[in-house]
Amino acid sequence: MDKQIEALADQLAQRDLDWMALNPGPSLRYLTGLSFHLMERPVVVLVGSSGRVKVILPELERAKVAQLPFDAEIIPFGDDPATWQGIFESALSEISGKALRVGVEPTGLRFLELDLLRNALPEAEFVVGSAAVAGLRMRKGAEELKAMRQAAIIAQNALLNTLETVKPGQSELHISAELMVQLFRAGSEAELPFAPIVSTGPNTANPHASPRNRALQEGDMLLIDWGASFAGYFSDITRTFFCGEPNEEMKQIAALVEKANAAARLGGKAGMPAGEVDRLARGVIAEGGYGEYFTHRTGHGLGMEAHEPPYVFQANPLILEPGMVFTIEPGIYLPGKYGVRIEDDVVVESDGLRSLTDLPREVMRLEEFLAVARKG
Amino acid sequence: MDKQIEALADQLAQRDLDWMALNPGPSLRYLTGLSFHLMERPVVVLVGSSGRVKVILPELERAKVAQLPFDAEIIPFGDDPATWQGIFESALSEISGKALRVGVEPTGLRFLELDLLRNALPEAEFVVGSAAVAGLRMRKGAEELKAMRQAAIIAQNALLNTLETVKPGQSELHISAELMVQLFRAGSEAELPFAPIVSTGPNTANPHASPRNRALQEGDMLLIDWGASFAGYFSDITRTFFCGEPNEEMKQIAALVEKANAAARLGGKAGMPAGEVDRLARGVIAEGGYGEYFTHRTGHGLGMEAHEPPYVFQANPLILEPGMVFTIEPGIYLPGKYGVRIEDDVVVESDGLRSLTDLPREVMRLEEFLAVARKG
Repeated sequence: MDKQIEALADQLAQRDLDWMALNPGPSLRYLTGLSFHLMERPVVVLVGSSGRVKVILPELERAKVAQLPFDAEIIPFGDDPATWQGIFESALSEISGKALRVGVEPTGLRFLELDLLRNALPEAEFVVGSAAVAGLRMRKGAEELKAMRQAAIIAQNALLNTLETVKPGQSELHISAELMVQLFRAGSEAELPFAPIVSTGPNTANPHASPRNRALQEGDMLLIDWGASFAGYFSDITRTFFCGEPNEEMKQIAALVEKANAAARLGGKAGMPAGEVDRLARGVIAEGGYGEYFTHRTGHGLGMEAHEPPYVFQANPLILEPGMVFTIEPGIYLPGKYGVRIEDDVVVESDGLRSLTDLPREVMRLEEFLAVARKG
Repeated sequence: MDKQIEALADQLAQRDLDWMALNPGPSLRYLTGLSFHLMERPVVVLVGSSGRVKVILPELERAKVAQLPFDAEIIPFGDDPATWQGIFESALSEISGKALRVGVEPTGLRFLELDLLRNALPEAEFVVGSAAVAGLRMRKGAEELKAMRQAAIIAQNALLNTLETVKPGQSELHISAELMVQLFRAGSEAELPFAPIVSTGPNTANPHASPRNRALQEGDMLLIDWGASFAGYFSDITRTFFCGEPNEEMKQIAALVEKANAAARLGGKAGMPAGEVDRLARGVIAEGGYGEYFTHRTGHGLGMEAHEPPYVFQANPLILEPGMVFTIEPGIYLPGKYGVRIEDDVVVESDGLRSLTDLPREVMRLEEFLAVARKG
């Protein structure tokens, strides 16, 4: 049996799940190497606790499963949606009478696949089974970490090349388009983790701003949150800059966020609950008097997805283990004025956290940042 | 009441649905203007047949709903997933005892949202309700068609700029990266409809090939399937080229696919079933003796999604109406040898189909294509 399929089958047996139902996405890619666009046609891969695999997919995609590294029963279907339910029923008829427990990934499986499966397996119970896969995916191996470091390097190079072209008067949209161009030139794969966030002035106070037509002005904060993709793995970085001279409050919140980032980055380690990393960052900002303006969790896991376990929020008891990768991204957002966020990608090691990202973290004037980064 | 919300409420009443449950994606954007990344946090917007709107979303995203053009009840939640079910239950408690019919989009709603909703509304029945939204989205208005034409122009310009740099020896991956760069330079928005497909030689025989390291060689077919994004709307085009001198079979299948594309493009019109457009293209290829090598449907709807209704497959009785937009993309794929596909985006008008894409369709040598396209 294939190593990954075997590992999942073990997880299923341990968790009292008979099957796991996967659809296109990172977990399917991680476990089987199979990559599909998630579209209007249902692709479902069922992995059993015995290691059996069933693949139900459009005829059109059949070439992709011609040479799988494991045994699998392939069930293709045609273009007419009216025929799909029947195909699912005959594909699963041999197990349809049983009271099975079928695990699903709640952020993966859609109503489309679930409905076809439920009708084909009327006696089955469909339950959240994401931990079976997440447990495997969370601990990154050496090859995965190499890809993630490369994704960080590509993103960092792209940022520097972009900043060299940035001038007051350019719109957020313009800067973000240039950053995308530089990401692909620097070697990013086509699927970016997310469209770069470029926000300026008061827009920096919205942590999830989309780039708009607003032009960068002297006296603005400039916040860039971006990432690259390499060998199927992502980076996710944020840096904040002063455009021209900052005021005192800007300098104060910038210094506080830098300190919070450092506290979590230098204080975290294996054996610690994920929530403790959040508390390390949050404590610094609360002590500085800006607690209510740090409106989100400290970070999220990173890998084949831009957001994946482990999530770094105060109440999370999950114990950090070597190989886990997550972001550390404290921020302070003053509505209507400006915001600062500084985000790094770190991997858990036995004695601490190692950062995969190493651009300067200090909030500086753009030209100063470029000089320091190019030297370092 | 807002015009779009009112139109949906009407649809719901007509279809005997009490509510529609939407999550982030194109339909939510179309109906409310709200744009979120689909992530691990559940964002759910419920629209009632009375026009009432409830928005359940992360505290972090609250700024996005501060100025909605319609009345809505906003229910925010925090970072700890353990609290989400409780929030959904209290948000929906006033309707939880009723035997409601709640429509969902099967390719949108995930197990995550469905499970939270089902537990909060134990008496409700969740049913496929996509037609309520699809019916509105399918008929594009003048503004939407303008955006789609612009998305086509951007894609076409990007292709020409890319082809000028293409040489034998370059890998599929290299050509595809250059095409992405040119798409953004030409004005595409960040979210492409899909990563460009660039396939060469025998890879062109796989209709859904991903770009690889294979280098373009003299004597190859080169197939490029790509699109751009403008104002939230997509284009999706395919052109096939000869690199160097084609053999007789290549010329023959190319001519047949050109003829099939023209038959559907010039033969389709309002009032005709979508399936008839498929038959027009398929008939030409079958008559030419290659029917079994045209392995997919003739096309799919296009708009805010790369694939959306109407789908153009033989068994589809859906009657074409003015304003519907879909692709016409017949192909012939000879396994292990080569494939040809020619794809245009057309809008239904009362007396025929109008193509939004107008690059030359004939399969030519690269340099010949460029000369003709630049002149035209």
